[in-house]
Amino acid sequence: MNINGIHHHTIWLNKTDGKTIEVIDQRILPHKIEIFSITTTDEAAYAIKEMVVRGAPLIGVTAAYGMYLACIEAKEKQNETSYLKEVAQKLNSTRPTAVNLAWAISEMLEVILKINDADERIKSALNRANEIKHEDIDICYNIGKHGLKLIQQLAENKKGKTVNILTHCNAGWLATVDWGTATSPIYQAQQKGIDVHVWVDETRPRNQGASLTAFELNQQNIKHTLINDNTGGHLMQHGMVDMVIVGTDRTTRNGDVANKIGTYLKALAAFDNNIPFYVALPSSTLDCSIEDGVKNIPIETRDQNEVKYIQGFENGELKSVLICPETTPAINYGFDVTPARLVTGLITERGVCEASEEGIRQLFPEKF
Amino acid sequence: MNINGIHHHTIWLNKTDGKTIEVIDQRILPHKIEIFSITTTDEAAYAIKEMVVRGAPLIGVTAAYGMYLACIEAKEKQNETSYLKEVAQKLNSTRPTAVNLAWAISEMLEVILKINDADERIKSALNRANEIKHEDIDICYNIGKHGLKLIQQLAENKKGKTVNILTHCNAGWLATVDWGTATSPIYQAQQKGIDVHVWVDETRPRNQGASLTAFELNQQNIKHTLINDNTGGHLMQHGMVDMVIVGTDRTTRNGDVANKIGTYLKALAAFDNNIPFYVALPSSTLDCSIEDGVKNIPIETRDQNEVKYIQGFENGELKSVLICPETTPAINYGFDVTPARLVTGLITERGVCEASEEGIRQLFPEKF
Repeated sequence: MNINGIHHHTIWLNKTDGKTIEVIDQRILPHKIEIFSITTTDEAAYAIKEMVVRGAPLIGVTAAYGMYLACIEAKEKQNETSYLKEVAQKLNSTRPTAVNLAWAISEMLEVILKINDADERIKSALNRANEIKHEDIDICYNIGKHGLKLIQQLAENKKGKTVNILTHCNAGWLATVDWGTATSPIYQAQQKGIDVHVWVDETRPRNQGASLTAFELNQQNIKHTLINDNTGGHLMQHGMVDMVIVGTDRTTRNGDVANKIGTYLKALAAFDNNIPFYVALPSSTLDCSIEDGVKNIPIETRDQNEVKYIQGFENGELKSVLICPETTPAINYGFDVTPARLVTGLITERGVCEASEEGIRQLFPEKF
Repeated sequence: MNINGIHHHTIWLNKTDGKTIEVIDQRILPHKIEIFSITTTDEAAYAIKEMVVRGAPLIGVTAAYGMYLACIEAKEKQNETSYLKEVAQKLNSTRPTAVNLAWAISEMLEVILKINDADERIKSALNRANEIKHEDIDICYNIGKHGLKLIQQLAENKKGKTVNILTHCNAGWLATVDWGTATSPIYQAQQKGIDVHVWVDETRPRNQGASLTAFELNQQNIKHTLINDNTGGHLMQHGMVDMVIVGTDRTTRNGDVANKIGTYLKALAAFDNNIPFYVALPSSTLDCSIEDGVKNIPIETRDQNEVKYIQGFENGELKSVLICPETTPAINYGFDVTPARLVTGLITERGVCEASEEGIRQLFPEKF
């Protein structure tokens, strides 16, 4: 999608040196647009852990390129295989909830562990990482194509009146390489001339809604309104939301959905008000090894200071302000799990299915 | 309750001049403890509108003293009655959702409009305002006494293990004159030696949970943990919440509860996880003229900048930081309405009742 009218991806290989991975630094958006360079596997791990890049699909792609850098680094090592496995472990442990990370690393290992020649391995690793990147673009495009039909149906039912879509966190193009997951149907609806408006949850504690979703919708000229995370229920009670679309960091075989903390509350409100609640995901986010998501998906606990301090801009400078007494203890769970019973459907690259084992199996039999 | 070990009320008459109303300035807590002086009815209106004081019961008491100041000002006017009505109207229009405001003003008018002598009127007005203040303290104490039994029951069921209570916004002593509504049972449980811990919702956009509830619990040595507003559902899914207690700004004859935006989402999560959800209120918060709260309670819309900017402290200085692109539109509804079907019970000064017309009628027959 575009930034200041110019088409961008969130991640790319520096064409000059062929071994620097460049990403948009998402920690300082929307106030500054800066490139963060990743030249080592340590920097790749840092970029994921510190949320220079975030969003389950983009984390996966970044880890894939991280494994390409691992192959470059391995060339200098004595035991290359053990080094590659060590880097895989390092990248995998950066963030626990998004399963795309493990998926992308395992895809890379499958290719590179078979190859003994170091240069050959580097070349194949780059090819596979590039493939994973371009697959992500295609997948997100296809998620949009299938999700678009749902929006078209709502627009028809509303006889052309504005379709109001609520989203939580950023499952936009900034969470992927391009298009986004939850936003892809919205961008494609815009291209079809459908009148859409998006309610953007600010998404505390890190405010990815306020800083990233609002930014990208603004850049794409999609009508939107920022709300705090408490507001969605009230809007739904008053007929101001036609549909919810969110992303996910891991979805289980029976359709339980881990996503940014607070998603469960919006799903409850949608259910209580008979509003369709959809989850958009690439199949790499499916984890069919887990059944009960509430019990078994690992939930990341992050630094309590993300709750106690809020980051924002004052006179063009990034500031962090304390919102509570200095000694107040806080806790910061990054994700929650929405039970499948609250999910109207999953929007995937192969179509829309029920959030159930049966539904998922029909579209992705190979996952079981 | 205490600030730095010294007992305080939130509002008092300056004893030296007998005509300045002093309040704790709640806009700068927890970082600074400063007194705001109200010497005119304009200042009283300002203090309520700009949230120097907030919380339905405290707004009511402030308006009562505001009407006392109106009597002083009326003495200089030609048509005193019309001036008093004008001030009543001015104070009443400061904030639309909390019904205690209208209640207190009407209580004051009932006394003062009967009196023709200006000095007599001033004296009676002060008496009634003082009474309303001290009634509020008694009412909050009694809310605590009745709510305490619910906590005692939970403590017994848990065999002395910590009772975890979640609250939203500040329905603490800072929202009243003393004790608080939602917090009064908690303070009394502490006095009985019950092991309680409070989950404090930060309560965006103005963060009254982070800045006020965390402050007052800290001052009273009640164990507590600050969470962002998205977290409560996850805690409830994982057995980490035994009970929710919130306040209310207006409760209808059938038990629908208007409270700070986001309360409805917590009620949905409590209901989904079979966790008792209680609302603590003085009977002055009951509005038996309204049945359907979702349709008929007026919901205040506040400045969108409360969503776009967050206020906090950096190096001891109050700062306001922008969390989204400067041009992003936002909307800021101050309250939502939780339908009675999600409310386990109402904790009032006369006991605990069902959130229904039948339940309310049993305790407060005179309201119907």
